[in-house]
Amino acid sequence: MDTSVPLVTPSAAYPPPTDEELSALQRLGREFRVSADKDALPLDPDQVSQRTMVPGARLGRFVHVGSPTHGVGEVEAAFDPAMTGTRTERQAGWLRRVLIGPPLSSTALQQERMSKKVALPVLSSDALSSVAYGPQAMLAVLVLAGTSGLDASLPIAAAIVVLIVAVSISYRQTIRAYPHGGGSYIVASDNLGHIPGLAAAAGLMCDYILTVAVSVSSGVAAISSAIPSMAGAAVPIGVGVIALLLYGNLRGVRQAGRLFAIPTYGFIVGMLVLIAVGLVDAAGDNFVAHPPNAVATEGVTFLLILRAFGSGATAMTGIEAISDGVPAFQPVEWRNARTTLTWMAGLLIMMFAGTTLLAHFQGVVPTGSETTLSQLGHSAFGSGPLYAYLQAATALILLLAANTAFNDFPRLLFFLARDGFAPKAFLRMGDRLAFSNGIAALAVVAIVLYVAFDGNTERLIPLYAVGVFLAFTLSQSAMVVRWWRRRDRGWQHSLVANGLGAFLSAIVLLVEAGTKFTEGAWLVVVLVPTLMAMAWVIRVHYRRVGRATALTNFHLPWPTPTEGPRRGAAFCVVPIGRLDASALQALAYAAELNQPVLAVHLVPDQAAEDHFLEAWRAFGDPVRLEILRSPYRAIVAPLAQYLLGLHAQKPGLVMTVVLPEIVPRSVWARPLHGRITARLRRMLVREPNVVLTSVPFVA
Amino acid sequence: MDTSVPLVTPSAAYPPPTDEELSALQRLGREFRVSADKDALPLDPDQVSQRTMVPGARLGRFVHVGSPTHGVGEVEAAFDPAMTGTRTERQAGWLRRVLIGPPLSSTALQQERMSKKVALPVLSSDALSSVAYGPQAMLAVLVLAGTSGLDASLPIAAAIVVLIVAVSISYRQTIRAYPHGGGSYIVASDNLGHIPGLAAAAGLMCDYILTVAVSVSSGVAAISSAIPSMAGAAVPIGVGVIALLLYGNLRGVRQAGRLFAIPTYGFIVGMLVLIAVGLVDAAGDNFVAHPPNAVATEGVTFLLILRAFGSGATAMTGIEAISDGVPAFQPVEWRNARTTLTWMAGLLIMMFAGTTLLAHFQGVVPTGSETTLSQLGHSAFGSGPLYAYLQAATALILLLAANTAFNDFPRLLFFLARDGFAPKAFLRMGDRLAFSNGIAALAVVAIVLYVAFDGNTERLIPLYAVGVFLAFTLSQSAMVVRWWRRRDRGWQHSLVANGLGAFLSAIVLLVEAGTKFTEGAWLVVVLVPTLMAMAWVIRVHYRRVGRATALTNFHLPWPTPTEGPRRGAAFCVVPIGRLDASALQALAYAAELNQPVLAVHLVPDQAAEDHFLEAWRAFGDPVRLEILRSPYRAIVAPLAQYLLGLHAQKPGLVMTVVLPEIVPRSVWARPLHGRITARLRRMLVREPNVVLTSVPFVA
Repeated sequence: MDTSVPLVTPSAAYPPPTDEELSALQRLGREFRVSADKDALPLDPDQVSQRTMVPGARLGRFVHVGSPTHGVGEVEAAFDPAMTGTRTERQAGWLRRVLIGPPLSSTALQQERMSKKVALPVLSSDALSSVAYGPQAMLAVLVLAGTSGLDASLPIAAAIVVLIVAVSISYRQTIRAYPHGGGSYIVASDNLGHIPGLAAAAGLMCDYILTVAVSVSSGVAAISSAIPSMAGAAVPIGVGVIALLLYGNLRGVRQAGRLFAIPTYGFIVGMLVLIAVGLVDAAGDNFVAHPPNAVATEGVTFLLILRAFGSGATAMTGIEAISDGVPAFQPVEWRNARTTLTWMAGLLIMMFAGTTLLAHFQGVVPTGSETTLSQLGHSAFGSGPLYAYLQAATALILLLAANTAFNDFPRLLFFLARDGFAPKAFLRMGDRLAFSNGIAALAVVAIVLYVAFDGNTERLIPLYAVGVFLAFTLSQSAMVVRWWRRRDRGWQHSLVANGLGAFLSAIVLLVEAGTKFTEGAWLVVVLVPTLMAMAWVIRVHYRRVGRATALTNFHLPWPTPTEGPRRGAAFCVVPIGRLDASALQALAYAAELNQPVLAVHLVPDQAAEDHFLEAWRAFGDPVRLEILRSPYRAIVAPLAQYLLGLHAQKPGLVMTVVLPEIVPRSVWARPLHGRITARLRRMLVREPNVVLTSVPFVA
Repeated sequence: MDTSVPLVTPSAAYPPPTDEELSALQRLGREFRVSADKDALPLDPDQVSQRTMVPGARLGRFVHVGSPTHGVGEVEAAFDPAMTGTRTERQAGWLRRVLIGPPLSSTALQQERMSKKVALPVLSSDALSSVAYGPQAMLAVLVLAGTSGLDASLPIAAAIVVLIVAVSISYRQTIRAYPHGGGSYIVASDNLGHIPGLAAAAGLMCDYILTVAVSVSSGVAAISSAIPSMAGAAVPIGVGVIALLLYGNLRGVRQAGRLFAIPTYGFIVGMLVLIAVGLVDAAGDNFVAHPPNAVATEGVTFLLILRAFGSGATAMTGIEAISDGVPAFQPVEWRNARTTLTWMAGLLIMMFAGTTLLAHFQGVVPTGSETTLSQLGHSAFGSGPLYAYLQAATALILLLAANTAFNDFPRLLFFLARDGFAPKAFLRMGDRLAFSNGIAALAVVAIVLYVAFDGNTERLIPLYAVGVFLAFTLSQSAMVVRWWRRRDRGWQHSLVANGLGAFLSAIVLLVEAGTKFTEGAWLVVVLVPTLMAMAWVIRVHYRRVGRATALTNFHLPWPTPTEGPRRGAAFCVVPIGRLDASALQALAYAAELNQPVLAVHLVPDQAAEDHFLEAWRAFGDPVRLEILRSPYRAIVAPLAQYLLGLHAQKPGLVMTVVLPEIVPRSVWARPLHGRITARLRRMLVREPNVVLTSVPFVA
């Protein structure tokens, strides 16, 4: 598996043929003889264009390009590819155009290159926005132990800062080693194998889903801290925001450089001013902390410290984003990415440490109704425009962070699908060059999660960090293995850096999973292996189908004859209900195939049989007829059983079941015509050498 | 339309061919030439039996019967017709056998003949059970005007008794005129035409649905009057009861004579004893009424009297049942039916008048928590075993009444479907000779209604009588027209009887619809024309399709050739995704048809095109290939558009679209293989002269 070049292209589902395939095709081509002349086609396949448009401009969407080369015609689908089908389908297509926008050509897909100044805000919104909930989550645990609990915030924050430094240094190594982008799934698969790769992918999938849920819930909390009357509507507002993100991403919101830079820089500025003002205030008090007013309900236990540490570590989520996005930098990509990562880590540390410090000095006690950042903002800025600015910037950067998940989740599914671990549908790029299926899947799951947890950040946080630190641990361990195997220049230094990062991440992972298990982390602990198992089963299936459809050992089941159809190699069966025009049309079609034909009719009783035979004899009894009696009045099952039993006599023969089908013009009338044909199809479709032909009669 | 003989048979969907059809078939038979020898079939269609069973006993259900006559073989589907299909389908079939029972042969369908003693309880449970809610509904209106309101109960009851007498005499005429069964739909259609017939049918449908809802809610009230702790669970209990009725009727609960007689006779005995004991008590008080203790919230207005009359008239529902069921009597059918009707009317009058009288003497005031019958029972019997017997008998007869709707509703839908006014699916008799579709439809609608009205009898009553009296009025008016037209012996007397019945019913109908409109009757007033319109639209559709599929002006679109397929009259198109085994199988199948073949491949970009062409050239470029470029990555719509545009060049040619289709063995794996083929089918199926062939590749 070559995962080292993770190119995202629309033609990923069309890999080049292998040498084996080519030689198998050559062999099969010699077996394949077509008696009909290649030029016998009664119409010209190249002449499908506006000149042969059917009335109603159904084909106005086609433009013919170029003349045929080596017998191959080319026709290009132009502007609007969804204007065929029923009226409902066309209306849906039109609505889609209006809402989602006109389709984008594959040629519009090009990698934007970002300067460091643009890359920093675009790629670090997820990480930096984490300070909106990380410190608060930590304090919310410590406050259980009252004042003495909150006193532990500074040493815990110091430990997290150390962690951020170690992990950042570790990811600097990954960036150098994977200049084409080193997501955890790719790095882990590449160096540790499929199972760790899948574990990293499953962890990341949980992470992305929770990034959406937690960012949106924190963003809504930032707003409702400023406008308390909105607090009751957290769930509908949050769902609306996720729906908006879904809509924007289906339209194909690209990471639109400068525009996206504004909220991130806005947030950074707001935070730095907040910290500065807060520190000046604290200096005025000679850096004496206000004692927080909190009542202890638990003691300061080691477990409590660990839980607080685990909650605070959610501030690190998103730190891996830059290593995923290396190819988006201007050259020399890896060097610029590393510099940006260092900047991001610095800012993250400053903001995280600053927030914790201010909360300590001001004796902030977390409340359910106001965020910690809002409390700090109030005390630094009062309730004026600066406070409003801080809250707005916080909400905006959180929205941006949620949006990055909408880029990363579908891309991860694309890589999984490319390797056969996810349904192939996730390979498809939609009209707007977005992975619509993955985007929709993320939105649905995130909304379910958000609603299930009432949009409550505090309840969501325990689920968050398990997936992240699982991916961190695996990705950095994979780097250790890589350095050990390859021993490039300076490998010892990199190995130590990645090893330390992996070791610390693993410890955090155990802390998260262990201390938060009953608070919700069990969900992720269950989900990760479930997702891995699903991925594995999907891969086994695709590989089995791949082997079955492989050409290497394939022989044409129906080696085509050189003159006329082979008698006795194929036959047709025509199940007939009423002997009406639709039935006769199907019979005539079957006769046209020039194979032996058997008509089959099913009756519930003698009277029905007599009626049919009278009509059949009037028709002249032209082909062999078999009457099935169904005294229990079942139609589909006896028919299917009879046909399967008939074919079982000589399973090597090709049995074509020619089904007359009345197709009403209007959709609403469909239930009036039963589902016999559809059900018969379903029962016969899994039988080898049985071909199903519908002869629609449009009425 | 011959509706005079309403026979219910499983072969109703297989009418005999008309003379026109037979001569058209003779003409078409001369056009139809099959070059293949009738005996060229490479296997023997008569030899499908246990001897050719495929492994796994899939065909163990077939028994071959008889030898072929005039070239027609016969095979009979034996015991269990649902053992084919996927494993899930087979398991569902097995579960169905266990729950619903083994299928019944059509020959098991025979009309049970009932003696008068059996017919009376079986056919009158609906009518007689109405006294459980009719008088109570009347009193519930009158109590609004307090004591003086309740005083009006006796004159109103007298008016209703007169109505019962008049309508019974009227239906005696119908019984004589329609010895094969004269349901309102049939009588009204027969004499007044389609529109009044549909109005009667729509009224009856509402009536049957409400019979279920009201009988079940009253039955539950009878039980919860005796055991008040059950009152809170009225909705789940009622839904459970309806589900039980659904289940029993899907199993094919026949009106099992003697067994069904017990609850009805039990109820009659209980009521007569109650009335006797009550009258003896009243005699002890010298027939002085206890003044009821009721506070007036309204005055005794004419409108109030009318509303009370309308509510009390619900006691008449079900009175038409005997005229529907004439053929079920022993000969002379109509004479026995008339006698039974007279008996039923007598009992109904006695019980209705007796109940009202007792309520008057005892000054009963309706309460929300206890039924009027229960109040009377308590005062006559105390709380001992006689009281318990009365409540149990009441609940049982109400259950029986609800059950009759499960017989009548599907039968009505059968007649409507036979005349093209309802989906043909309602013609089908299930495994157990029951009209499963109609039964299920009734249960679903009744449950929705029951839950929407909280299982509250008082709230359901206003909806009840509108449909009933609409059907009564139309059916009796139809009889008037019939007598006037035919002038049989004694027609004047019958005309007067039916005329009076129709006149009185029409008045009640206006009273019901007018006074109860805002209380819920509007729903029925809206529903009846809606159902009529739906029926009409369905009929128009079926007639249009019938004309389209009629043979009279039909010519074979593909007059079959005498030697070999006609070149240039038909061609094949094979859309190919990957050039794998499934695609080659489809290509080989298409080549076998010996028609010109065009392969079509769709690519998103140049790279994908190059990859495909490389493979195609290795294969030897055996048939004409057209490459479609889809720069917007849509697959289905451009393919469909291209194929439709191609066919539009010569719409008279038959285009067979041969679709390779990978069919996974396991159902769960289906989403892994996309829906391209299914969607393409949907887009092409409405195009005349386009035939769709699936070549499944089972993997």
